[in-house]
Amino acid sequence: MSVDSHEMHPSRWGDPAAAGPLPDSARGLIELAFGLDDRPAVEHPSVPPGRLDPRLLDGLRDLIGAEHVLTDDETRRLRTRGKSTPDLLRARAGELDDAPDAVVRPGDHDDVAAVLAFAVEHDLAVVPFGGGTCVTGGLAATREGYAGVLSLDLVRMKRLLDVDEVSMTATLEPGLRGPEAEALLAEHGLMLGHFPQSFEYASIGGFAATRSSGQSSAGYGRFDSMVVRLTAATPTGRLDLGAAPASAAGPDLRQLLLGSEGVFGVITAVTVRVRHLPETTVYDGWRWPSFAEGAAAMRTLAQAGLLPTVIRLSDEAETAINLARPDEIGSEGAAGCLMIAGHEGPPAAVAARRSAIGAVLAGLGGTDLGEEPGRSWVEGRFRAPYLRDSMLDVGVLVETLETATWWSNLDRLYTGVKAALEQELGEGTIVLCHISHVYETGCSLYFTVAAKEGEDPLAQWDAAKTAASEAIAAAGATITHHHAIGTDHKRWYGQEIGDRGVAILRAVKAELDPTGILNPGVLIP
Amino acid sequence: MSVDSHEMHPSRWGDPAAAGPLPDSARGLIELAFGLDDRPAVEHPSVPPGRLDPRLLDGLRDLIGAEHVLTDDETRRLRTRGKSTPDLLRARAGELDDAPDAVVRPGDHDDVAAVLAFAVEHDLAVVPFGGGTCVTGGLAATREGYAGVLSLDLVRMKRLLDVDEVSMTATLEPGLRGPEAEALLAEHGLMLGHFPQSFEYASIGGFAATRSSGQSSAGYGRFDSMVVRLTAATPTGRLDLGAAPASAAGPDLRQLLLGSEGVFGVITAVTVRVRHLPETTVYDGWRWPSFAEGAAAMRTLAQAGLLPTVIRLSDEAETAINLARPDEIGSEGAAGCLMIAGHEGPPAAVAARRSAIGAVLAGLGGTDLGEEPGRSWVEGRFRAPYLRDSMLDVGVLVETLETATWWSNLDRLYTGVKAALEQELGEGTIVLCHISHVYETGCSLYFTVAAKEGEDPLAQWDAAKTAASEAIAAAGATITHHHAIGTDHKRWYGQEIGDRGVAILRAVKAELDPTGILNPGVLIP
Repeated sequence: MSVDSHEMHPSRWGDPAAAGPLPDSARGLIELAFGLDDRPAVEHPSVPPGRLDPRLLDGLRDLIGAEHVLTDDETRRLRTRGKSTPDLLRARAGELDDAPDAVVRPGDHDDVAAVLAFAVEHDLAVVPFGGGTCVTGGLAATREGYAGVLSLDLVRMKRLLDVDEVSMTATLEPGLRGPEAEALLAEHGLMLGHFPQSFEYASIGGFAATRSSGQSSAGYGRFDSMVVRLTAATPTGRLDLGAAPASAAGPDLRQLLLGSEGVFGVITAVTVRVRHLPETTVYDGWRWPSFAEGAAAMRTLAQAGLLPTVIRLSDEAETAINLARPDEIGSEGAAGCLMIAGHEGPPAAVAARRSAIGAVLAGLGGTDLGEEPGRSWVEGRFRAPYLRDSMLDVGVLVETLETATWWSNLDRLYTGVKAALEQELGEGTIVLCHISHVYETGCSLYFTVAAKEGEDPLAQWDAAKTAASEAIAAAGATITHHHAIGTDHKRWYGQEIGDRGVAILRAVKAELDPTGILNPGVLIP
Repeated sequence: MSVDSHEMHPSRWGDPAAAGPLPDSARGLIELAFGLDDRPAVEHPSVPPGRLDPRLLDGLRDLIGAEHVLTDDETRRLRTRGKSTPDLLRARAGELDDAPDAVVRPGDHDDVAAVLAFAVEHDLAVVPFGGGTCVTGGLAATREGYAGVLSLDLVRMKRLLDVDEVSMTATLEPGLRGPEAEALLAEHGLMLGHFPQSFEYASIGGFAATRSSGQSSAGYGRFDSMVVRLTAATPTGRLDLGAAPASAAGPDLRQLLLGSEGVFGVITAVTVRVRHLPETTVYDGWRWPSFAEGAAAMRTLAQAGLLPTVIRLSDEAETAINLARPDEIGSEGAAGCLMIAGHEGPPAAVAARRSAIGAVLAGLGGTDLGEEPGRSWVEGRFRAPYLRDSMLDVGVLVETLETATWWSNLDRLYTGVKAALEQELGEGTIVLCHISHVYETGCSLYFTVAAKEGEDPLAQWDAAKTAASEAIAAAGATITHHHAIGTDHKRWYGQEIGDRGVAILRAVKAELDPTGILNPGVLIP
């Protein structure tokens, strides 16, 4: 069975050819900070044999075609878990015990509905699979109590179903990866403008199912704000939601499917608001004396309705690391804090907005660093997961986590999470942070953590993640701004939405998926 | 029992003192178009005796205080139905058979929770009551099968609970009427900026429960987009939703309560995003040769991200009527189509935006009419419901209805609804329309209909409403953009969200309100 060029090995991110070796400079920095401790990964971890009854496999083949029901080890291996550091650690250790029993590739909505009906009849768990980039355990469905686990791979559903250039909408199938969707839209001079770090691999269906937010969210919005209509296949029937751009016809049920992580239904099409491809793109760097001052400037822009297309701010530590000056971590103010303010659109609009924003930032104490920092950021914007692999190779534990809160609560959240991580992981731990999504009322915080790998890195990270999550909950913030719940965030999610919130999810689940075949164990506490 | 000065008589809108007599010019126009046929309303329609068991009333008095449990005829009369034309027609004919049996006035969240628990125990239907401005039958709950109907009047819950000037949020209780909320916020230099036509009477809780949209939605957003956090009392417990401005922590459950019209729970507090009071306000008039050209200009602005604070466009007929030139209705292009583009904010931002928008509008063929049309619109913006009363007084049936669709579907929807109304109501019917809420992907359409009242005006309007609603459904548009479902829209709402959508609502209802005491018969098909 040939492997889709977009498939990822379970223990590494992305395309091996694109990964390349770690640059000497980075290797030097890592050695300086943590020492080097080569930790080779198991090259070809084996998966347990598929345990699906051959008669069931025949039944599936009859439904959607024999060539779309795959049981070979390699295909199943490449559909095992997602891309969190614990996922990678397990795969590197050769543990792929929760591989799916078979991979099914429906071609359209009706195929999906047929597979769901079959799964209900035969009590098979169904795990929708898009890009496989989940970092919160959303692909690790419960096996117990099911006759088997199907990975429902949406890779064949990659059509651009409709373009409405008057209404500026496009209807996309869920299996399109980010670059594929953008390429199809670009043929019409259009784009979505959704660029999360996982962009190169993640899928349209995944963006919708996890309420993804991209690096240009200030200009183009979160994915959930782009979706104007969606179709889903549920075990009990079809859902078509969204009759107008906005409506007072009852609750907005689109917002119940967005973020549902495949537990209510499989999203088979989304109609998204699109934009014209930008004629001009310019990213400016700005230096701030402190993270607090940079954040205050972001707040001023957001509350004035004067946001650029991209806006992000690294704290002192992240700025120092990005400038390859690890010795400056902790020496506050040496490098200051780097902000990127990126502008995209028609030349006149970009010029006007860039000038207005520049005036505000300069007036608030920012220093214009020109375009070089922005170019550098653009070049590296999708590279971090490759770097993580390289660091895991030399015994450095790296992971990210993120949250969001109100502006007035930002310092409490930042300080609390940073302290929790440093305390749990001990001396030498590096905690970096940036703000990359801003709103009138608050913003996100995205932490990157690096620590010397201990004896049991899974337990080590679990303790750190727990400490950070407790700090997030203690600050009253959300457990995730753009990585979804999966299985890893369930403990805190229950607190966040309360007993009645959980009861709502369970009631909707029982109605749409009464036998519980869809992504069991994911999302719902 | 003294009557709250904001209470409205069941057969008329607003404050009798503010209503005033119909100006002679308007009276002349109406006579010209329809003839005058005096139709006096029953002055003091009687309500049926409250049928609540005295022991239940005592129980309620023990819970929230005897002075907050009212059963007098006048109080019950003023809580009967809402303000649709059918509501008014019934009240004018003296039919107030569905008056509540008692009016209870909880003072806080815990009072609401206590009343709900009592209602569950004794099988009482509970109808949340804010401003009483509903135009879709949302206050006309089912009586059958219940031991009585309580109007849960939120009039005592009028506090501004919190202001966060850093995050620019405010927490409001649901009983605050529009002007009361704005007055409390104005003490902090802040505002909500939510001005639906019902503004002077409608309440914060009602705005949230019906997904209200105000006349400044282009600048300040729909009410559902303002709410960042909400608290609700349900028969099975409390809901607190919204931990951050945006989140990927599962479905956005706030959007399930917004628009739920009191059937899932009673909203007891909302935290809304607020803005600074504008320093400058200027409303410009623009003339367009046709409705289509004006609408295309709105689309251009919306898709360029260049919207004013207020933008609305009257079609040829509405423009002619507003200019008091009814003879020009039908003679296309005589007066053209009036657009109002209103700008609010800091002087420099207003000047820049006004200039940029003016350039776009002039470039597309608009004619700048200066500030007079805007001043005139601002003066009359909340007066239409008073005018309707005056027209009902002289035998002219007047009602409004509204919808929304994608830009590419606008002409089909406009033509279809207009034709359906004209055909159903016959010769001499006047149908006016405007666009008052625009989005990148589409806009709203708001129709005003006037026809000579026939023998049975209720049946007459029911037929017209049915014809218009069928035309909306046939065009694939939403059955309401900002008036909610109530009881009047249920038939078409079921089609709009489909069988599975209805099933979701029923499942959530069964979970949160298992005995079905909350607003029975409303919203859920």
